[in-house]
Amino acid sequence: MALRVAVAGASGYAGGEVLRLLLSHPEVEIGALTGGSNAGARFGSLQPHLLPLADRVLEPTTQDTLAGHDVVFLGLPHGQSAPVAAALGEEVLVVDLGADHRLKAAADWEQFYGSPHAGTWPYGLPELPGHRQALKGARRVAVPGCYPTAVSLAMFPAYAAELAEPETVIVAASGTSGAGKAVKPHLLGSEVMGSMSPYGVGGGHRHTPEMAQNLTPLAGEPVTVSFTPTLAPMPRGILATCSAKAKPGTTAAQLRAAYAQAFAGEPFVHLLPEGQWPHTGSVYGSNAALVQVSLDEHAGRIIAISAIDNLVKGTAGGAVQSMNIALGLPEELGLPLNGVAP
Amino acid sequence: MALRVAVAGASGYAGGEVLRLLLSHPEVEIGALTGGSNAGARFGSLQPHLLPLADRVLEPTTQDTLAGHDVVFLGLPHGQSAPVAAALGEEVLVVDLGADHRLKAAADWEQFYGSPHAGTWPYGLPELPGHRQALKGARRVAVPGCYPTAVSLAMFPAYAAELAEPETVIVAASGTSGAGKAVKPHLLGSEVMGSMSPYGVGGGHRHTPEMAQNLTPLAGEPVTVSFTPTLAPMPRGILATCSAKAKPGTTAAQLRAAYAQAFAGEPFVHLLPEGQWPHTGSVYGSNAALVQVSLDEHAGRIIAISAIDNLVKGTAGGAVQSMNIALGLPEELGLPLNGVAP
Amino acid sequence: MALRVAVAGASGYAGGEVLRLLLSHPEVEIGALTGGSNAGARFGSLQPHLLPLADRVLEPTTQDTLAGHDVVFLGLPHGQSAPVAAALGEEVLVVDLGADHRLKAAADWEQFYGSPHAGTWPYGLPELPGHRQALKGARRVAVPGCYPTAVSLAMFPAYAAELAEPETVIVAASGTSGAGKAVKPHLLGSEVMGSMSPYGVGGGHRHTPEMAQNLTPLAGEPVTVSFTPTLAPMPRGILATCSAKAKPGTTAAQLRAAYAQAFAGEPFVHLLPEGQWPHTGSVYGSNAALVQVSLDEHAGRIIAISAIDNLVKGTAGGAVQSMNIALGLPEELGLPLNGVAP
Amino acid sequence: MALRVAVAGASGYAGGEVLRLLLSHPEVEIGALTGGSNAGARFGSLQPHLLPLADRVLEPTTQDTLAGHDVVFLGLPHGQSAPVAAALGEEVLVVDLGADHRLKAAADWEQFYGSPHAGTWPYGLPELPGHRQALKGARRVAVPGCYPTAVSLAMFPAYAAELAEPETVIVAASGTSGAGKAVKPHLLGSEVMGSMSPYGVGGGHRHTPEMAQNLTPLAGEPVTVSFTPTLAPMPRGILATCSAKAKPGTTAAQLRAAYAQAFAGEPFVHLLPEGQWPHTGSVYGSNAALVQVSLDEHAGRIIAISAIDNLVKGTAGGAVQSMNIALGLPEELGLPLNGVAP
Repeated sequence: MALRVAVAGASGYAGGEVLRLLLSHPEVEIGALTGGSNAGARFGSLQPHLLPLADRVLEPTTQDTLAGHDVVFLGLPHGQSAPVAAALGEEVLVVDLGADHRLKAAADWEQFYGSPHAGTWPYGLPELPGHRQALKGARRVAVPGCYPTAVSLAMFPAYAAELAEPETVIVAASGTSGAGKAVKPHLLGSEVMGSMSPYGVGGGHRHTPEMAQNLTPLAGEPVTVSFTPTLAPMPRGILATCSAKAKPGTTAAQLRAAYAQAFAGEPFVHLLPEGQWPHTGSVYGSNAALVQVSLDEHAGRIIAISAIDNLVKGTAGGAVQSMNIALGLPEELGLPLNGVAP
Repeated sequence: MALRVAVAGASGYAGGEVLRLLLSHPEVEIGALTGGSNAGARFGSLQPHLLPLADRVLEPTTQDTLAGHDVVFLGLPHGQSAPVAAALGEEVLVVDLGADHRLKAAADWEQFYGSPHAGTWPYGLPELPGHRQALKGARRVAVPGCYPTAVSLAMFPAYAAELAEPETVIVAASGTSGAGKAVKPHLLGSEVMGSMSPYGVGGGHRHTPEMAQNLTPLAGEPVTVSFTPTLAPMPRGILATCSAKAKPGTTAAQLRAAYAQAFAGEPFVHLLPEGQWPHTGSVYGSNAALVQVSLDEHAGRIIAISAIDNLVKGTAGGAVQSMNIALGLPEELGLPLNGVAP
Repeated sequence: MALRVAVAGASGYAGGEVLRLLLSHPEVEIGALTGGSNAGARFGSLQPHLLPLADRVLEPTTQDTLAGHDVVFLGLPHGQSAPVAAALGEEVLVVDLGADHRLKAAADWEQFYGSPHAGTWPYGLPELPGHRQALKGARRVAVPGCYPTAVSLAMFPAYAAELAEPETVIVAASGTSGAGKAVKPHLLGSEVMGSMSPYGVGGGHRHTPEMAQNLTPLAGEPVTVSFTPTLAPMPRGILATCSAKAKPGTTAAQLRAAYAQAFAGEPFVHLLPEGQWPHTGSVYGSNAALVQVSLDEHAGRIIAISAIDNLVKGTAGGAVQSMNIALGLPEELGLPLNGVAP
Repeated sequence: MALRVAVAGASGYAGGEVLRLLLSHPEVEIGALTGGSNAGARFGSLQPHLLPLADRVLEPTTQDTLAGHDVVFLGLPHGQSAPVAAALGEEVLVVDLGADHRLKAAADWEQFYGSPHAGTWPYGLPELPGHRQALKGARRVAVPGCYPTAVSLAMFPAYAAELAEPETVIVAASGTSGAGKAVKPHLLGSEVMGSMSPYGVGGGHRHTPEMAQNLTPLAGEPVTVSFTPTLAPMPRGILATCSAKAKPGTTAAQLRAAYAQAFAGEPFVHLLPEGQWPHTGSVYGSNAALVQVSLDEHAGRIIAISAIDNLVKGTAGGAVQSMNIALGLPEELGLPLNGVAP
C-alpha cells in the first residue's frame, strides 16, 4: 500500500523538488500540498514543471491539512518545524528540509540563528559514518544544509583516516536556487547572470558550525572551518573546493585509498578516476555527489572537491534518501542517479 | 525479458540523452555503446553524467558491435543510416535520430541535404494525426527534427480545424545542444553566453520542408513555411513562436476548442490554461510539450507557442516514445513528464 | 562650459546606464542623482559599477533637487513626467526615458496605458526619416521604447522603399534588464537562466502601437503589427526578427539597395555584409544597431533582423544621442560604438 | 602626433580587447592587425563588435607587417614573443600579453612551461610596490596573468604590512574567455552553461609560481601558494577568494588600514566600504579591480577577495595602462573605470 505523503511549503524550490522526486517514487502517493501566502492558488501556476499536479490547489499549512499522512516533508521558515511536528504525532515520519534540528550545540544555534534551540533530530546524511544506522526507523529527520552536504562528503574521508590537519578552508560556488524563491534585488536575473559574487564572508554563514559538527568527531580533534560561499550564474549546483594541510607523511596513495574506502558501496557518492574532476553540470537533477581528491605536494595540502545538485543531494534528494532509510525501503528508490546534461 | 538496446553515436548529445532515458526504462537492458573517433575511450570520460555506464568502453560503430540487439538507436552523420539499418536486418527495430528518412519528397531531400534520398520511414511524432497508428509494429522509425516537433505540435490543430491560412511564420529559439557536440567557434561558451543570434535565415534551414510536410496534409492545401531559427544562451530548450492569418470568421473559442480536442488524451502534450504561456524551463529534461494559443484580433492572426526540450521531446524522448509504440509497450514507459526546474 | 545634467531615477537600470554614458561624455558635468524609495542611500551601494559616483548620495526626486540643470533625464514611472517637466521650465532640455510622450494618438495611449494622454514630444529615433531634423533645438525628447527602436530600424527601409506589404510579424527576444530592476518572481535568476519565455502575446504589449506609428507614415498605408516579445536568459540585448510579405516583383537587390541607402552615413546603424547576421553579443554596451535583411524567395517574405543593446541604443544611448542633437553637439559624442565582446 | 600601434594576434580575445580599448584612446592610431590562420579574412567577420575596424583585413604576423609602429602588442602562443620582439628593435615598445617574460626564475618557467626561459621583462602590474617605477620608460612589458593580477591585488597589502602568514590558499572563478578562443570540447556553450568546474587542481596551474613571485618579496619570507582555478558559466570576470592565517595579534583595524594605505591614490584598485563585497558583474568591461578584506576571528584567517574583468584589468587593460606609464602618458588614458552593468 502506498505511503501517503504531504509537503508543506510546496510552492518553494525545496518543496517543488521533493515533489518532482516523489512523483517518480513507486511507493508514494502524494497527499496534501500546502503553503503560506500562495494558499488557494492552482498548483500549475506555481510549479508549472510538475504537470501531474497542475490541477491541484495549494492548501494552507495547518494541523488539519497535514493530518492523515504517513510522511510529512517540511519546507518552512526557521523556527516553525518543532510545533508542526509535535502536532503530527510521533508515529508520522517528519522530514525537515529546514535548519531547525540540525545543530547539536544550542549555543551554535543561538549564535547563528538568534532564536531558542528546538532540539536535534537524526541527521540525514547517511554517508557520514554512523548516520545511516541512526536513520533506520527514525520518525524525525533533519535534512543537512546544502553546503554542509557538499563539504562533509568532500572532507570526511581525509579526517576519518587522520590524514588532514584540523583546519579546513572552503570556497564553494552555489547556483541561485540555493537562495530560495523569495524575491530579493540581488537575486534578479539581471544581477546574477554574468557575475560571481561572495556573501557571508568571514565566518558568518550559518552552515559553518554544521560543517564543523560533521568533521570534528571523525578528526578526533576540533576542526576549524573557514567557509566562503559564492553565488554563481547558474540555477543549480554546488562546487565545493576544500583544502586542509596534510598531516606529516601523508601520501597521495594513502589519500586515494581513504576516499575509495569511504565511498565503497555508496550508491550516490562517487570518487572519480584520477585526473577527472567533478563538474556541477554532471549532477544536474541527480542525487549523485561526485568527489575528487589530490595532494598538492608543493603546498602540502589536501585538495578535495565535490559537486552536487543543491536541490537534490543537497536538499530534496537527501530528504527522500533519508525517508527511504527511515522506512526500511531500498535506499535508492525513486532517486535519479544520472544528471541531465548537457 | 528485457529488450537489448544498442546506441550508435553514444558519445554525442542525442545518443547520451537516449541513454539517460533508457537507464530509467524498466524493459530495457543497455547493450553496445558505439562511436566514431572516440571509440576505445572510457564512457565516463565522455558522458560523466551517466554514472551507471561510467566504466563501459565505447566500441566502434560496426555491423558486428551492433548485431544481436532488439533495438538500435542511430545517432549518425547524414547519409549513414540506410546501410547500417540494412545490415541489421528487418526484425530489428531501428530508430534513426538523424534526418535521413524523414522527408517524403526526394526533391526536398536533395535540395536541402545535397545527397541522394534514402527513402522514408514511419515518422516518430505520434501526436500528429495518423502517425501513432503508423508507428505500431514498425521496425524502422525516423525521429522528427527538434524544430519540426515544436512547430508541428504548435500549429497542427489550427490547420486540422481549418482555422488558419496556409502561410505560417515561425521564429524559434533553441538551446545550444541542438547544434550538437562538434566544436565550432560560434558555439564556444564565450560566444554564446549573453547573446542571441539567428542563423539559416531566409528559408535555408533544413527543417523547413519537414514542417511543411507535416502541416500541408492537415490543411488540405499547401502550407508555406517561413522559418527563422535563433540560438539562445541556454543548453536546452526550444521556444517556437508560430503564427498564421486566421481564416475569416475564426473565433478565439473555436481556436481553443480545436487545440483542446487535438491534445485530449495525449500524455505528453499539454494545452496550458488561458493566460499561461509556456517556458522552456518548465520542460527541462522532460518529454512534455507545452502549448498555448491566442487570437490576436487586431492583427487577425493566430499565435501558437510551444516549448519543448530539444533533446527530449525534440529527439531522444520522441525516439523512446516511438520505440514504446512500435513494440507495443505503454507509450509513457521510462519517459519523464516533469521538468527539472528551476 | 560643461552642461550640468541631472538624472531622476538614477538607481534604476535606465538611469544607471545614462550615467555610465555621461561619465564618458566630454561636455557633461553630472549634477543631481535622484530617486524614490532609495533616497538617502550611498550611490555606490546601489550602482557599484559606477565608481566615480560611489560616494554620492541619492537625493529625493523633487522640484528643488532637479532645479538648476541644463539637462534632466527622467526615468520615472508612467504618468509622472509631464508635471516634473512642467516645473523645470521650457529652457531646460528634458529627456524622458519613459513612455508618457511617445504616442501621438491619445486613443492608443489610453487603450494601452489606461490613463489620460499627456501629449507628444519629439521622438528620439534620429535614424527614422524626418526625426533627426525635429530633434534639433528641441527641449523635450521622448526616448523610444527599446523594442520599437529595434523593430523600426529593421523594417523602416523596406516600407520607405515601398517593398513590403503592410503587415509585419515580429518576434523579439530581450535580455532581462528590459524588465527593469523591480523585483518580481518571474525575473529571479533561478527562473530566468536556462529558459526562454514569451509574454504580452496576442497584441497586448504596449510597444505595439508605437511600432505601427513609426512604420505607417513611411508605408503610406496603415501597417498592422503582430508583435510577440520573449524573455531571453541574458542581461542585455534585443534580437528583433521581423518579416513582411514582399510586394510583387520585389528583388533581393532592390531590398539590399533600400537598406544600404537608408543607413548610409548613419554613425550607429550598420547594415552587415551579405551572409552575416547580427548577434546581440556584438553590441553589448554599445550604441550600435546591427541590421541584416534577406528575401525568402520561397515564402515571398522579407526577413529583417536587428540587434541592439536594449539599455544603450534601446534606451540610454538613444537618449544621449538625442541630447547631443537637440543641443547641437556632435551626434556621436560620448557614445560607444564598440561592443564589449565576448 | 598619434602613436602608431600594431596588434599581433588581433583575432583572439586578448587582441580584440586591446583594440576595443585602443579605439577609445585619444593618442593612438591603429596600425597593422595581424594573425595566424585567419590572415586574409575581413576583420568584421572575426571581431564583429569592433565596427570601426570591420573593413580591415587581417594581415599575417611577420616582421614586415609589424614594422613601422611605435607600439606593438603581442598576443602570440608561448615561446614566440622573444624573436618577434628582437626583430622589432629596442626603441619600439613591445607589450607582451603572453607569459614568456613574466617569470624571473628560469627553473619555474621550465617546470611549468617545459621550454627554455626567454628572459624577464618589466612586469605590468603598477599597483604592486616598486613596479610602477620600473615601467616608466620601459620598452618591453610583460603583462601579468589574469589570475596573478586578481590574486596579487587581493593579497599584497596583507603581506606588505606583515599581517599574514606565508601560506595563501586561493580559489578563483574565471569566465570562459580566460581560456581563449581556441575551440575545445569542454569550452562549448552547452558544456559550460549551468556548470562550475575546477581545473589545474593540486598546484599545476601555470599561474601559481607567478603569484608566489609577486607576494614573496613583500612578505620577506617565501610565500607558499595553493591555487585552485574554476571555470564559471560567464564570459568574463575573475572572482579570487584568497586567505591566509593572520599573524598573531593582527586586528581587523590594522588589516583595513593596510589595505586602505596600499590602494590610496590608485586610479583603478578600489577598496570597498566595509560590508560590501566585490561582484565581477560590477567590473564587466572595466579596468577597475574591486577588493574587500575581512578578518575571520574564529578561524584566525584573513579573507581577501578581488573582482576584475579578466580581459581588461587582467589582460588588455593592464597592457594599455602599462603602455601609458611606459610612454609617460596619463596612466588612465583610454581606460574605462565604469563597468557595464547589469
